Amino acid sequence: MGELSELFAPNRIAVVGATEREGAIGRAIMDNLIEDFDGEVVPVNPKYDELFGLQCYGDIGETNADVAIIVVPPKVVLPAMKSAGQAGIKNVVVITAGFGETGSEGAAREQELRDIAEEYDLNVVGPNSLGVMNTDVGMNATFGPDMALDGNMSFMSQSGAFITAVIDWANDEDIGFKDIVSLGNKAVLDEADFIEAWNDDPDTEVIIGYLEGISAGREFIDSARDVTKDTPIVLVKSGKTDAGAQAASSHTGTIAGSDAAYQAGLEQAGVIRADSVQHLFDTARVLGDQPLPENKDVAVITNAGGPGVMSTDAIGESDLEMADFTDETLEKFSEALPAEGNIYNPVDIVGDADNARFKEALDVALADENVGSAIVLTAPTAVLDYNQLAADTVELQEKHDKPIAACFMGGERVDAASDVMKDAGIPNYFDPSRAVDGLEALAQYADIRQREYDAPTEFDVDRERAREILESVKERDETRLGVEAMELLDAYGIETPQGAIIDDPAEALEVAEDIDGDVVMKIVSPDILHKSDIGGVKVGVENEDVYDAYEDLITRAKNYQPDANILGVQVQEMVDLDNGVETIVGMNRDPQFGPLMMFGLGGIFVEILEDTTFRVAPVSESEAADMTKEIDAAPMLRGARGNETVDIDGITETIQRLSQLVTDFPAILELDINPLVALPDGVKAVDVRLTVDPDEL
Amino acid sequence: MGELSELFAPNRIAVVGATEREGAIGRAIMDNLIEDFDGEVVPVNPKYDELFGLQCYGDIGETNADVAIIVVPPKVVLPAMKSAGQAGIKNVVVITAGFGETGSEGAAREQELRDIAEEYDLNVVGPNSLGVMNTDVGMNATFGPDMALDGNMSFMSQSGAFITAVIDWANDEDIGFKDIVSLGNKAVLDEADFIEAWNDDPDTEVIIGYLEGISAGREFIDSARDVTKDTPIVLVKSGKTDAGAQAASSHTGTIAGSDAAYQAGLEQAGVIRADSVQHLFDTARVLGDQPLPENKDVAVITNAGGPGVMSTDAIGESDLEMADFTDETLEKFSEALPAEGNIYNPVDIVGDADNARFKEALDVALADENVGSAIVLTAPTAVLDYNQLAADTVELQEKHDKPIAACFMGGERVDAASDVMKDAGIPNYFDPSRAVDGLEALAQYADIRQREYDAPTEFDVDRERAREILESVKERDETRLGVEAMELLDAYGIETPQGAIIDDPAEALEVAEDIDGDVVMKIVSPDILHKSDIGGVKVGVENEDVYDAYEDLITRAKNYQPDANILGVQVQEMVDLDNGVETIVGMNRDPQFGPLMMFGLGGIFVEILEDTTFRVAPVSESEAADMTKEIDAAPMLRGARGNETVDIDGITETIQRLSQLVTDFPAILELDINPLVALPDGVKAVDVRLTVDPDEL
Repeated sequence: MGELSELFAPNRIAVVGATEREGAIGRAIMDNLIEDFDGEVVPVNPKYDELFGLQCYGDIGETNADVAIIVVPPKVVLPAMKSAGQAGIKNVVVITAGFGETGSEGAAREQELRDIAEEYDLNVVGPNSLGVMNTDVGMNATFGPDMALDGNMSFMSQSGAFITAVIDWANDEDIGFKDIVSLGNKAVLDEADFIEAWNDDPDTEVIIGYLEGISAGREFIDSARDVTKDTPIVLVKSGKTDAGAQAASSHTGTIAGSDAAYQAGLEQAGVIRADSVQHLFDTARVLGDQPLPENKDVAVITNAGGPGVMSTDAIGESDLEMADFTDETLEKFSEALPAEGNIYNPVDIVGDADNARFKEALDVALADENVGSAIVLTAPTAVLDYNQLAADTVELQEKHDKPIAACFMGGERVDAASDVMKDAGIPNYFDPSRAVDGLEALAQYADIRQREYDAPTEFDVDRERAREILESVKERDETRLGVEAMELLDAYGIETPQGAIIDDPAEALEVAEDIDGDVVMKIVSPDILHKSDIGGVKVGVENEDVYDAYEDLITRAKNYQPDANILGVQVQEMVDLDNGVETIVGMNRDPQFGPLMMFGLGGIFVEILEDTTFRVAPVSESEAADMTKEIDAAPMLRGARGNETVDIDGITETIQRLSQLVTDFPAILELDINPLVALPDGVKAVDVRLTVDPDEL
Repeated sequence: MGELSELFAPNRIAVVGATEREGAIGRAIMDNLIEDFDGEVVPVNPKYDELFGLQCYGDIGETNADVAIIVVPPKVVLPAMKSAGQAGIKNVVVITAGFGETGSEGAAREQELRDIAEEYDLNVVGPNSLGVMNTDVGMNATFGPDMALDGNMSFMSQSGAFITAVIDWANDEDIGFKDIVSLGNKAVLDEADFIEAWNDDPDTEVIIGYLEGISAGREFIDSARDVTKDTPIVLVKSGKTDAGAQAASSHTGTIAGSDAAYQAGLEQAGVIRADSVQHLFDTARVLGDQPLPENKDVAVITNAGGPGVMSTDAIGESDLEMADFTDETLEKFSEALPAEGNIYNPVDIVGDADNARFKEALDVALADENVGSAIVLTAPTAVLDYNQLAADTVELQEKHDKPIAACFMGGERVDAASDVMKDAGIPNYFDPSRAVDGLEALAQYADIRQREYDAPTEFDVDRERAREILESVKERDETRLGVEAMELLDAYGIETPQGAIIDDPAEALEVAEDIDGDVVMKIVSPDILHKSDIGGVKVGVENEDVYDAYEDLITRAKNYQPDANILGVQVQEMVDLDNGVETIVGMNRDPQFGPLMMFGLGGIFVEILEDTTFRVAPVSESEAADMTKEIDAAPMLRGARGNETVDIDGITETIQRLSQLVTDFPAILELDINPLVALPDGVKAVDVRLTVDPDEL
């Protein structure tokens, strides 16, 4: 572990606000520490000379502790922190509530806390935290009722209550932890700090967490992406739904970002997102205990046809596949199994199978190179000894080093077998679908480890020109730009149709004459957003009609809104929509993650079907390319229904260039290229709209 | 219970093939019956005079039993059944395997079994069954290892292994059953017979099942639809995925229908489909034990903010809603809760809440008329006694008679409280999402009970004309019909564009002159399926060009395929696609469910996005209307994106009329109206294709 190693493994812990008063939090923490901690516990309270038979100090500065746990009232927290800082104590856990979560006074106090932390370079957990735990040194510096068991998961939570609930349950289930931290308000240390620290900790095999928000999205992605190459991270990120986000926001006092941003950001970071508590722990346990599969193909060995079908369904609905056995394997099964069995996957070794037959079948399946993982699935029978089967399963997993999930179906008769397998890290579930979920998580993490991260391409762009265009907003006292911003796209190398915006009918004709074929003409005014509705768009205008068309567009605009700021008329090359697919590339700015890129087909696909995909910018080439594959309607880009395949590389590059633009200019709050017409031989950004924050320029 | 009551509650059971030989199935069944059965057990085996100290009979005919359990070898099963039939024994359970599941000889034997059953009017379970169980009279007429506990669920399964697994697990979980039946090959009695019998059984509150196939789909829908008005049915239907269906088919030896048909059929029948074993039992238990909610609005009362957010997310992702409290309720919460709490839903009564505060908050929430159900959600704290909270929860549920699900999060400390609630039928889960799933199932079943079933409308149609058109297939020795079958739609009152099929250019002109505006002309030949590909379709033909267009179409067709059977040219009114939405109404025939109606938007929505919905025909008006609402792109029909709303009633009626057509004529194997153009003022079936089985005519 890096900088935070001392926080989780101190020799000497001071509790500022220690007391013997029953019911007090300072009492609960002292009790917990005294009960289990391997090091020294130091009470701090100016009212006493001795507490719990220990020498009591008047000030944290005198204690020479490695970690200070602070439980005094809000107003006394900051002086205590200062005192700790002055004495060189680097790790402070602020249990006390009454900071950012409670309104403006609390928020001001939290800012002061942050300032002190910075001044003294303190690692601060909280405020408003349940505390921290480390099972290695028996440190239970929380006011929760129970100490966790020893294990290889480290766990962070934005809800202290969830920690107490989980520990109580996990102790019963024999599930252990390395470190636990209640993040509280995350005034100083946040999720990114802990995942980095745990990545360096050889005793942490899996990082799990419950988060309601991520403090700095982009930074989290960058650091988690490195961590997940070595250490799996599984998170519940709550506030997924609108109602949930509102509840989370009222719980933590922060504005939640959009779930689309979280979903994209977690995916980009290689974090596995769990959608329930059960899913969180099922996933974390297999990741902590099982080897990773070399492929997605699963063998199911069963003595029960019906459950075999259920597991096949569950695999069919997952990202896994039923393994196709090699001929050699099929031959071996033919020899080993009775005629009424099934040698194909799921392998039905029939209800009268004894332990020897089960073991042989599993051995043969695991030896098959086409098999990445296996499910051992049984219903109870008179001839099968579950304990023996458990021992055989453990032995065969060691032999073949492939992941196995067990479904020994049954109740009490499974318990002992289940314990044997649990010790070897093989999970056992009654429900085949949970076994499949576990193997799927392993395959998913294997993919995450293997994927290559390519840094975002830096295109050669005209950044100064872009800045000038954006700054024109200031002059006009506007926040929105329409087609007049097409040059912004030009400056960033995004293909736009030939043409120009002019404010004179004669010039319009000149522009039109330079363009092959008929042109499109559109009124250009930041005050007129829905141009078509007022007849502000003319399609297929021949050169001879350009002059009149110009005059007509201006007249219509003035009639519609006499005070409208009319910048002129756009004269543009006609884009061949019949051979193209209209797509949309957009961006909005998420409060946590910053610029969030969106891609989809235009029209109904975005508006009604919400068939869109997202990435946090800046996006790399492979991320942009993935976006073009992820929408349901992706085959439309790839020649479905007799269309020609469009220029996917062009879309990919446009997404990247736009990503660079919005990353370079935080002033761009929202931007949509709609449509970006994808043609067989290129793409054209036909229209653009954006909203700018002039104060950011 | 009806006819089958004696099967599940006999006074006297005979076991044909009883033996004392260790390991024999006849021994296992005798042991099980002797151990628990309240009535008399009668061994039948010509080799013995006495078995297990009981008089042993040589022939089932001599036993005067109510139920015969048959475990003799396959060849001796049929004589035993006959003998039973002759002696007036009506209930026979055939344990013996080696029938339809084993190839042609077995299939023939199964047919004989069916004949005998019919001849003697026997209720036959199996063959290839684990047996039957009834906890009321302690009848364990299975060869499984355990007897089930007493309960209010009755359970059928197409997998015997699944029954043994479930009983073992359920005994451990304290979950009980009324009747259990292992359906085996369902040669005589099938799922529909048991659900009808259990619907009449006052001791069965919930029917659950594991099925790999449904024998007679339409009949199942009709009988289950009545049953589910009184008694909820929850089923796992496996073989959902292609791989699963293949595995099921190899397990049961039958061809599975499509999962779309099962999904539609189960939905139409009001059956709740469970997607995992956990979901099956979670759902069944709440349905058996909890009252139904009056609305979908849930109150969450919690002492823990984080888990409160999780439950809000789970509700947001379900069909349930977070309840909006009345002002009166909010006022009461304001008085009862501390300032740092949250009086809005999820109600956060804060971590220091004691039992009195928890009880009061729950009481206030349940009293609110806007609240249909509640979740009691807690993390362990020092001030809260879980056992007391459990007792209070049970008391308040009785007081308000609203469904409650509990999430007392924790391990061992929850056990006693959980037991108290379990006795009152209140489920307790660690994971908030499971609690939400339970409440959602109750709301779903409340909807099922309330929904009205309208019988399919019988439209006045020209059935004879339709028959003639279909029979023209026979004359031409064809199985496919294209636009020449437009008259078939006419005969069933489905709107088609004005026009006709003619085989003379002069007639073509006459037809065109009768039509307002330009026409569409298409070559008509059963041998040319993709007319557009060979230039066989001409759009926007003016009257003066009709003659030449006719000649040209014929020439093209002959060039393309000289031996093609050319029926002529269709001259058709132009349908205004710009103001319409192209939809598709289709049918294919499922092996289990018969005619399966499909509806969707045309083109990409069907081909790529698979945005379609299905119903088993005949469909009623409300079912057809639902189909127009269920597709994701449904808003396109209802004026999205500035379009006019199309004639939804016209679509609904077309679906019904087509449903009537394909129900009337089983010879129609497949039929697509594509497109059915839906316009603001009507619908037009522009093209139709069908496949006919001439042998069915």
